[in-house]
Amino acid sequence: MDRDRILLTPGPLTTTLRTKLAMLKDWGSWDADFNALTAGVRSRLLDIVHGHDSHVVVPLQGSGTFSVEAAVATLVPRDGHVLVPDNGAYCKRAARLSQMMGRKASVLPCAEESPISAAEVERQLLADPGITHVVLIHCETGTGVENPLQAVAEVCQRLGRGLIVDAMSSFGALPIDARETRFDALIAASGKCLEGVPGMGFVFIRKAVLDGCAGNSQSLAMDLHDQHVYMGKTGQWRFTPPTHVVAALAEAITQYVEEGGQTARLARYVDNCRTLVDGMAALGFKPLLRPEVQAPIIVTFHAPAHAAYDFKRFYEGAKARGFMLYPGKLTQVETFRVGCIGAIGRNEMRQAVDAVADTLREMGIPDGTPAAAALG
Amino acid sequence: MDRDRILLTPGPLTTTLRTKLAMLKDWGSWDADFNALTAGVRSRLLDIVHGHDSHVVVPLQGSGTFSVEAAVATLVPRDGHVLVPDNGAYCKRAARLSQMMGRKASVLPCAEESPISAAEVERQLLADPGITHVVLIHCETGTGVENPLQAVAEVCQRLGRGLIVDAMSSFGALPIDARETRFDALIAASGKCLEGVPGMGFVFIRKAVLDGCAGNSQSLAMDLHDQHVYMGKTGQWRFTPPTHVVAALAEAITQYVEEGGQTARLARYVDNCRTLVDGMAALGFKPLLRPEVQAPIIVTFHAPAHAAYDFKRFYEGAKARGFMLYPGKLTQVETFRVGCIGAIGRNEMRQAVDAVADTLREMGIPDGTPAAAALG
Repeated sequence: MDRDRILLTPGPLTTTLRTKLAMLKDWGSWDADFNALTAGVRSRLLDIVHGHDSHVVVPLQGSGTFSVEAAVATLVPRDGHVLVPDNGAYCKRAARLSQMMGRKASVLPCAEESPISAAEVERQLLADPGITHVVLIHCETGTGVENPLQAVAEVCQRLGRGLIVDAMSSFGALPIDARETRFDALIAASGKCLEGVPGMGFVFIRKAVLDGCAGNSQSLAMDLHDQHVYMGKTGQWRFTPPTHVVAALAEAITQYVEEGGQTARLARYVDNCRTLVDGMAALGFKPLLRPEVQAPIIVTFHAPAHAAYDFKRFYEGAKARGFMLYPGKLTQVETFRVGCIGAIGRNEMRQAVDAVADTLREMGIPDGTPAAAALG
Repeated sequence: MDRDRILLTPGPLTTTLRTKLAMLKDWGSWDADFNALTAGVRSRLLDIVHGHDSHVVVPLQGSGTFSVEAAVATLVPRDGHVLVPDNGAYCKRAARLSQMMGRKASVLPCAEESPISAAEVERQLLADPGITHVVLIHCETGTGVENPLQAVAEVCQRLGRGLIVDAMSSFGALPIDARETRFDALIAASGKCLEGVPGMGFVFIRKAVLDGCAGNSQSLAMDLHDQHVYMGKTGQWRFTPPTHVVAALAEAITQYVEEGGQTARLARYVDNCRTLVDGMAALGFKPLLRPEVQAPIIVTFHAPAHAAYDFKRFYEGAKARGFMLYPGKLTQVETFRVGCIGAIGRNEMRQAVDAVADTLREMGIPDGTPAAAALG
């Protein structure tokens, strides 16, 4: 049967039919109706972070990484210097893109299984007054760990350094309040916890730093200051917007508000995560992270120790039963990941656990217990 | 009535319902099924230019301009020097993005109403042996003029210079054959003459120059060499692909092939263009361009001379009657543009002319005759 599978991935994810149906219309990108759609999305995004007074939000075509690169290119002066606390793959990517565009970038290596330490960030900033910006990954999707946004923001504010937050996989679910947490830029995308389809990102930029961003970017396409100024003047995107993706995001945000906004979204994801972790624990699986540092976004599990385990077969087994898992992204230990986000609830998580159990049976694996060595 | 309007714009454009329906499914971006979808799109794009032997094609997230910038960033060495023959807004944009990323860029100013001259390009290349690449806009959407791709390609080949072609609004409709026309890169996008939805571009890169492109790009997101190498290894996009846009493009290409490919698509657009120009001529409107240099993609018309003419009212009138026109992009003369591309045929073009006629009546304008001065 060609029934759509449930995506247990960190985005693209399973969206509602209502969100997808919003794409059954062609919009003129120059037309006032489309400009109103864009303006509505921008305003409601600012609602979510309580940022109308302090921030603007600038949408950008492309994947979330395009928006991360654009935020660094636009916010960090050419002679700027970024510090990237690194506890995973997305941290490394942020450092790499900063270096490629010619910005000085220092990496602060941290353990992958723990949140980065705000105190350690503070020591680095005190030791090197030349560091102009910290780039923080809020929820490191490589493992699923939540990093301490508020504590790092306080350090940056106290020491007068800029803060750029990659909130790709947390925005909309974890609480972020611009009235309480000072950030210069915060980046997310359409196809994550807002449950839209992928194809655009957006960057909140603090009004106080906006004017100073003019001329920083060496990329025309990624110049968020230019995009913002042009949008302010015309209501339009500078270059062809992904109109159907924007329409889907508008519809997804409407459902987000109807569901009860951030607190309701978080509650559903927390329940998804608990249902998943409890169900998997009953099968012997162990998560990589301690529960207190696990964000309810994506869970990394140790691979079973059993000799018959093979990720590809395991993945195909779960897929045949209707669920798409996600590979691990760690180099030291064998893992796989399961997302808790998207238009899914407790039923889907229970069914996913059943699919995993059935797949193990088919593979002749009695349970998901990892090797003792993997648990350290 | 909330009936969808026909977009007479250069993209986003009117797509078939079948293309839009392909977006009603969520794809896992890591999954083999999605990799097969991407591979199929890439292979069929190479079919269209007969490029399997000579070229690869690399898809990229974002609007077409992102792909133009990526092509320049990837193909032109950091100490390279591009020449941009300039007969319109998209030429100026290509020069600007090249300069912003730090490449030396020279502009060859040309008249907007005429194709650029291959002989003039040759003179410039002979006069400056330091010029490494020519960036040519195949069909300049600012006016609708077709530039001489084959002649410029021959000049570049003879003089041993690279050629980067922005074929955004021509690809799929005008004939381009990689066996006969040598180009190093050629760029187009999903939401133009292939009649997909906007959200991704793609760049054909000549295999002979591909290896030499490693390390040129200062942008991680726009590094087409890196994207190509990663796709070759994994079958996946490096960063989250716009999965629904890719699915729509795959479906649009299937319909393109069913219609009869490039020759059939061109024949329909030629007929659309002729129907439009003839119908508008009967109302007194005059196109900006001579017929022999007019590409059948988008037509620029002079604004009517009548004192009651106002583009905004004219646009709203046509829109109320179901058709979205496009503003002019010239600074010297007042114009408006009408696209001939998208999932539309002779009926829609005739109805569009009727809508224009009816709008003129409503505005109290007897006919579309432009001011004598505008005709030069």
